[in-house]
Amino acid sequence: MDISLSKQIVASLKVKDLTILTLLSDFGLKDPYVSEMKGTILSLCPEVTIVDITHNINKYDVLMGAFVLSSVTPYFPPDTIHVAVVDPGVGTKRNSLIIKTKRNLYVGPDNGLLILSAEKEEIVKIFRISNQKYLRSKISKTFHGRDVFCMVAAHLAKGTDPSEFGPEIKRFVSIRFTNPKVIGNEVLGKVIYIDSFGNAITNISTKNLEMINVKDKSDILVKLKDSTLRLKLCLAYEDVPNGTPLAIIGSREYLEISINKGRASKEFGLNQEDSILVSLFHS
Amino acid sequence: MDISLSKQIVASLKVKDLTILTLLSDFGLKDPYVSEMKGTILSLCPEVTIVDITHNINKYDVLMGAFVLSSVTPYFPPDTIHVAVVDPGVGTKRNSLIIKTKRNLYVGPDNGLLILSAEKEEIVKIFRISNQKYLRSKISKTFHGRDVFCMVAAHLAKGTDPSEFGPEIKRFVSIRFTNPKVIGNEVLGKVIYIDSFGNAITNISTKNLEMINVKDKSDILVKLKDSTLRLKLCLAYEDVPNGTPLAIIGSREYLEISINKGRASKEFGLNQEDSILVSLFHS
Amino acid sequence: MDISLSKQIVASLKVKDLTILTLLSDFGLKDPYVSEMKGTILSLCPEVTIVDITHNINKYDVLMGAFVLSSVTPYFPPDTIHVAVVDPGVGTKRNSLIIKTKRNLYVGPDNGLLILSAEKEEIVKIFRISNQKYLRSKISKTFHGRDVFCMVAAHLAKGTDPSEFGPEIKRFVSIRFTNPKVIGNEVLGKVIYIDSFGNAITNISTKNLEMINVKDKSDILVKLKDSTLRLKLCLAYEDVPNGTPLAIIGSREYLEISINKGRASKEFGLNQEDSILVSLFHS
Repeated sequence: MDISLSKQIVASLKVKDLTILTLLSDFGLKDPYVSEMKGTILSLCPEVTIVDITHNINKYDVLMGAFVLSSVTPYFPPDTIHVAVVDPGVGTKRNSLIIKTKRNLYVGPDNGLLILSAEKEEIVKIFRISNQKYLRSKISKTFHGRDVFCMVAAHLAKGTDPSEFGPEIKRFVSIRFTNPKVIGNEVLGKVIYIDSFGNAITNISTKNLEMINVKDKSDILVKLKDSTLRLKLCLAYEDVPNGTPLAIIGSREYLEISINKGRASKEFGLNQEDSILVSLFHS
Repeated sequence: MDISLSKQIVASLKVKDLTILTLLSDFGLKDPYVSEMKGTILSLCPEVTIVDITHNINKYDVLMGAFVLSSVTPYFPPDTIHVAVVDPGVGTKRNSLIIKTKRNLYVGPDNGLLILSAEKEEIVKIFRISNQKYLRSKISKTFHGRDVFCMVAAHLAKGTDPSEFGPEIKRFVSIRFTNPKVIGNEVLGKVIYIDSFGNAITNISTKNLEMINVKDKSDILVKLKDSTLRLKLCLAYEDVPNGTPLAIIGSREYLEISINKGRASKEFGLNQEDSILVSLFHS
Repeated sequence: MDISLSKQIVASLKVKDLTILTLLSDFGLKDPYVSEMKGTILSLCPEVTIVDITHNINKYDVLMGAFVLSSVTPYFPPDTIHVAVVDPGVGTKRNSLIIKTKRNLYVGPDNGLLILSAEKEEIVKIFRISNQKYLRSKISKTFHGRDVFCMVAAHLAKGTDPSEFGPEIKRFVSIRFTNPKVIGNEVLGKVIYIDSFGNAITNISTKNLEMINVKDKSDILVKLKDSTLRLKLCLAYEDVPNGTPLAIIGSREYLEISINKGRASKEFGLNQEDSILVSLFHS
């Protein structure tokens, strides 16, 4: 059955189709904002399936939003529409973007939020949203998530071509995580995320560790802000007793500093952007 | 294709249809209560699409629930079924209601929770839920959300007429936000909501401000509980430096007191119901 | 219309069907983990409808997870697929399970999390997940929720038979809530859950109370850790003034210790597992 016939039948039967639209924001789950966005989408395109990535990005933390978005998008099916709104510059002259990659569509502010994820998938074209026809007739100065981004996303879900929303542009705001440096037999990296378990996720990959001869079950020396630790590179949190620190390769395939059933971030005072220096431990 | 044939096909194909049912409560997202409600609905009417408005209304705060509900419902499509449960009087003789407006159906306790939103849409009829046939056979004294309201909402979603659930009634509990007063060249209003960004949303509209000659970019004088501020009526939070207070017209079209990347509610000790007096600043 | 034909039509029309898959975890709603699981499921089986039970189980608290799961599952329709992940032993040799009961399918770690709920429904067969064909090709050592449990659940939703995933096993980790003891005219029970309202939910049933002649509106004597209270067994929280303690039969049909519009758990320092001794009050 061809797609357009299928879409027609879906519409006439008044049923949900399989187009997925995700939402990420720093709005939290208490205020009316998230459901005002969902209502906006469903009013235009009730057939779409909405999935929350998270709305608990730290307020105004574009980098954290970009990190979480780029962690999640590889696990969603192709042709998903990802809407992300961490937007302290709302109402200023910052651009509103649609990014078409080889895999998905992204909608959000031009502040770097979408870029980490989009670049991993290879960017095909970027459009600056400007066609008033697809926006709410009266646009709030403080809530483009509702009046611009979700309006646009719903029209994309209905099949409007990204090029309809405004001109293609070539320049955009970029952000980037710095790569770790391997210097001699040490790797100098960074904490890039603290998760809700208190695990400190670094930017140090298994490849980086192989370059300094660190393997599963190796003992490593980890220099943090205020402490130097000797840790085992474990295969499971429970490889050490409760309350004991460990190193482990996390679900992103990067080195994590953890405590079995404890909070490493608290115990070692770790924050995003902190430096971490790793080497193989020699007894 | 006519609606009844379409509903039959939906049922025979076992697919989701486009009827939307929203949920709002003060139950939080940790306890089993919200998903017990969802399971109840889906057991009776698996075709419906459930959307959470929020479950983080402050415990027992009917006024906050009414405010959030009335903010959100205009953005949902017509013929949505809105279920709201902030219900400290559960188990007492307070009535259970279905409210039919010109636009939607509402289900919840008779304590004012539904009224702000329903009155904006014009109330057509109100029914007191009493027909045991549509309720759980054994009704918990502490959880009408699950055993009364969601049972009723699922039956409404299946197409049962609101009049089937009980007698029409004419009297109901009402709540109302007071309107601001314009006295000479001042507006006396109130804080009606503190959002998770710490923005203090007032009941002062752009019309109220026009009456005292305040326009975009005007400087205004704002008297709060413990402080008097001179603020610019900005077009974007970032019109002022980080940490600087500002006034802005928020996404509800009402005056908000904010701090760019800060928390105005904390800085100025603002709470719901606090008075606020606004005038044009004359140098 | 037979089921297989219906499934074919659903697939060809690209629409959502009515198969429900629930998720429960201790991951919280801030990190990428929950949506990585949802993306994984939707990539394999976009037709399924995902419902969150909760992701706010206290970190590593298998007993709390088991309690919440067993509270909620009776309210979901039969043939629901329940995935639960509170899994401090991830990466160790603990088994991964599919449990087929007379009513539903369960997927999760072999640590007791699934058992309270499954045993209530009568267990038909338990399978140890081992067939690599249905798992992610590279399995993270820290995130079986994504790479094992949700992969398996999505394949189950597509119709793969549970026996395809690995051998049937007969031994599994069990947990159990202790039953209260009736000794003479007293019942000795336990607090099994503190909800977000601060209600202390006990394991004492209405049957237990009948055995010591406690009925609705009886005055009872309740001995807690640090206090002895005389409470009325109320029919509604508002049967007593605001701030006043009461006893009530909660929505699970068990005795709860509450304070009208207050927090009993805080006022009386109550925690999960605390003992509670109840008798009829004689003036």
